[in-house]
Amino acid sequence: MKIPEQLRREVWEANLAIYRAGLVTMHSGNASGVDRRRGLVVIKPSGMDYDKLRSEDMVVTDLEGRKVSGRWQPSVDLPHHLYIYKHRPDIGGVIHTHSNYATSFALLNRPIPVYLTAIADEFGAEIPCVPYADNQGDHMGEGILKYMGNAPAVLLAQHGVFTFGATPRAALKAAVMLEDVAKTCHLALLLGKPRPLPAKEVRKWYERYHTTYGQTRR
Amino acid sequence: MKIPEQLRREVWEANLAIYRAGLVTMHSGNASGVDRRRGLVVIKPSGMDYDKLRSEDMVVTDLEGRKVSGRWQPSVDLPHHLYIYKHRPDIGGVIHTHSNYATSFALLNRPIPVYLTAIADEFGAEIPCVPYADNQGDHMGEGILKYMGNAPAVLLAQHGVFTFGATPRAALKAAVMLEDVAKTCHLALLLGKPRPLPAKEVRKWYERYHTTYGQTRR
Amino acid sequence: MKIPEQLRREVWEANLAIYRAGLVTMHSGNASGVDRRRGLVVIKPSGMDYDKLRSEDMVVTDLEGRKVSGRWQPSVDLPHHLYIYKHRPDIGGVIHTHSNYATSFALLNRPIPVYLTAIADEFGAEIPCVPYADNQGDHMGEGILKYMGNAPAVLLAQHGVFTFGATPRAALKAAVMLEDVAKTCHLALLLGKPRPLPAKEVRKWYERYHTTYGQTRR
Amino acid sequence: MKIPEQLRREVWEANLAIYRAGLVTMHSGNASGVDRRRGLVVIKPSGMDYDKLRSEDMVVTDLEGRKVSGRWQPSVDLPHHLYIYKHRPDIGGVIHTHSNYATSFALLNRPIPVYLTAIADEFGAEIPCVPYADNQGDHMGEGILKYMGNAPAVLLAQHGVFTFGATPRAALKAAVMLEDVAKTCHLALLLGKPRPLPAKEVRKWYERYHTTYGQTRR
Repeated sequence: MKIPEQLRREVWEANLAIYRAGLVTMHSGNASGVDRRRGLVVIKPSGMDYDKLRSEDMVVTDLEGRKVSGRWQPSVDLPHHLYIYKHRPDIGGVIHTHSNYATSFALLNRPIPVYLTAIADEFGAEIPCVPYADNQGDHMGEGILKYMGNAPAVLLAQHGVFTFGATPRAALKAAVMLEDVAKTCHLALLLGKPRPLPAKEVRKWYERYHTTYGQTRR
Repeated sequence: MKIPEQLRREVWEANLAIYRAGLVTMHSGNASGVDRRRGLVVIKPSGMDYDKLRSEDMVVTDLEGRKVSGRWQPSVDLPHHLYIYKHRPDIGGVIHTHSNYATSFALLNRPIPVYLTAIADEFGAEIPCVPYADNQGDHMGEGILKYMGNAPAVLLAQHGVFTFGATPRAALKAAVMLEDVAKTCHLALLLGKPRPLPAKEVRKWYERYHTTYGQTRR
Repeated sequence: MKIPEQLRREVWEANLAIYRAGLVTMHSGNASGVDRRRGLVVIKPSGMDYDKLRSEDMVVTDLEGRKVSGRWQPSVDLPHHLYIYKHRPDIGGVIHTHSNYATSFALLNRPIPVYLTAIADEFGAEIPCVPYADNQGDHMGEGILKYMGNAPAVLLAQHGVFTFGATPRAALKAAVMLEDVAKTCHLALLLGKPRPLPAKEVRKWYERYHTTYGQTRR
Repeated sequence: MKIPEQLRREVWEANLAIYRAGLVTMHSGNASGVDRRRGLVVIKPSGMDYDKLRSEDMVVTDLEGRKVSGRWQPSVDLPHHLYIYKHRPDIGGVIHTHSNYATSFALLNRPIPVYLTAIADEFGAEIPCVPYADNQGDHMGEGILKYMGNAPAVLLAQHGVFTFGATPRAALKAAVMLEDVAKTCHLALLLGKPRPLPAKEVRKWYERYHTTYGQTRR
């Protein structure tokens, strides 16, 4: 079977990027992507050093998790990625991290309201927290699907975060921005009582960001 | 029309610098500069990766925002930059970031008093917080102009910061120092009750910094 | 006597890694490893710059601390490393740091409960805090042995941390993950009251991590 | 007059090191050293970018501050460095920074007690805080001399820190360790009430660190 080279490279780059951005340490976290046409998923191998990862170390499986290509075992979090891909055909990239500030909210089972215009821009809604789920079967995938709203990110209680996007690159953007806004919100909560933006204001930012922002119009 | 090469390079360098200094992540933030003689503004393109930006990717517009040169769409924050340039002829460079510590004050709609000699040095006055403004028309530019005092920086409630200077480089210095002093003030506020410097002391530092400091005398 | 080249290189790399990961500054901290067959220990030299360390600067001693090879004096913490190696034949690598977040718990004589799945994964149990011990004789080694539980890490009151593993690389992983989870727990404790995972849940994560995780099955 | 090349290089390296260690931003902070035999002081030029500094940009003055060599104006903080060199013949290197965690204590006019063994090691005593002094005449130098104890560092209220050593390199070590211990102490103070080490314990660590530590015995 032909390996999805372009996707493999994108998934590799997303894995390097979460490491360089400080969202993961040692072997924690993972990025994946799906090739819907061929029904293939590419994901980081389990327990390997980020700074030694090569594109060809990525593991390719089908949507049932059967290995199609790659020398290594896939991430043990593969079932959660697969569950999301199977139930959300609009999602093409998934990232899992334990990034510190976002996970500090998750540890308290606490969502992140739309306190900042940057949250309105990227997420468009409160970032929900999925109640604690263990690592058995589809428990985690089911929890994510159930609590996932419109925002391309969820917190996982006492665990970490998952972010989503149409591509691995889009999921990366959500992962980086989630930690960035979580940090600012955390710092503000230590000094006072921030207030969420009204829903009407949230829509203004979200709409601008998803229509006029970027280079898609050219 | 001749492209302002020198300014384009300065604006590009200021954009790289805010990224390297950790003041922005992914696509957030932007730096611009104005060439008053030619009536041209140079600004970062919208939604592009900082680490791939080249000098020639900068967008050149006139003071009404009409593109004069450049392959890309300009930052969606261009109108706020233009508003400042049109109303403050002394300003030649503008920077916008969501840097975490400064924005944590902004999220609480809270100015930063002159707690530190470094604030007196660079800013010479309290750093004000502009009340929340949406992204429509000139709302943000008007708010910035109305609340901007003598300090080359303002906080934007629930949003981020803008800094100013005679050049993009000067605006960069204000952006870096703003985050630096915001961090120290935040840390102190967690431990106790800092007191602002008396106005007389603020003047001593500001005057030394703006007369004998640096290499301008040589 | 033949120098254990492979181990020397591993110990050198672990010393570089704790510096690059920001767990140590200037001359603080140290990593060591033991060659059980030959009865040799390799450790960082005392008070030398991390960024100038070469593999050949590592000091080789026997298990009584007598120098066997190397130009420099060994770390003054060598006796604590030796004590651990002599009393725990399962341990092949030891790391000592003053990493900030973990040491902030140690300064308060406060263990880190299993608040996070990442703590369950790597440590499998609360990370205990050894009561203050001075630097005389075997006081520190004895305290570490007495309080060390199943987790490959201990906090040292008002001092820092020690981590352990079958190899220097494994001790490094524990050192990096300890600081990472300590940071997330610290941030959460500032915002609310996190709750430890139930023992049954801790076992699920620990077992998965120590059986199906990584590449050992291939 | 012959330029003290070796010292100039050491001072340049200390200036680069405080920048790379994140103790200073933009143009803040400065490192100097003295050549007692020739009566010459080497210091950073005023208001110049750290990442563009070359060894030959350092400014050489006599102990009265008269420029002996160098193209640039010296740091405006030169008078404070000179005051220390003139009154403390044991000091050969001085560093000034606004490093965030240490300065957060300074902003509150609050010394840092010997909470940690690392403070006992390097500083051997509480790090005192000099009450607010303005930038006129010898006010700052006098305050530093008056409050300086045995620790090679002082905090300056609402301002920053000065550290000292027999060489610029030793002053650098004190500056890096000061910020490191200030961070750990700050983090602990947010979670609880740390207690200083008893004086007897402080002496044990200080004596070990200043007798058996490092490579001086070889």
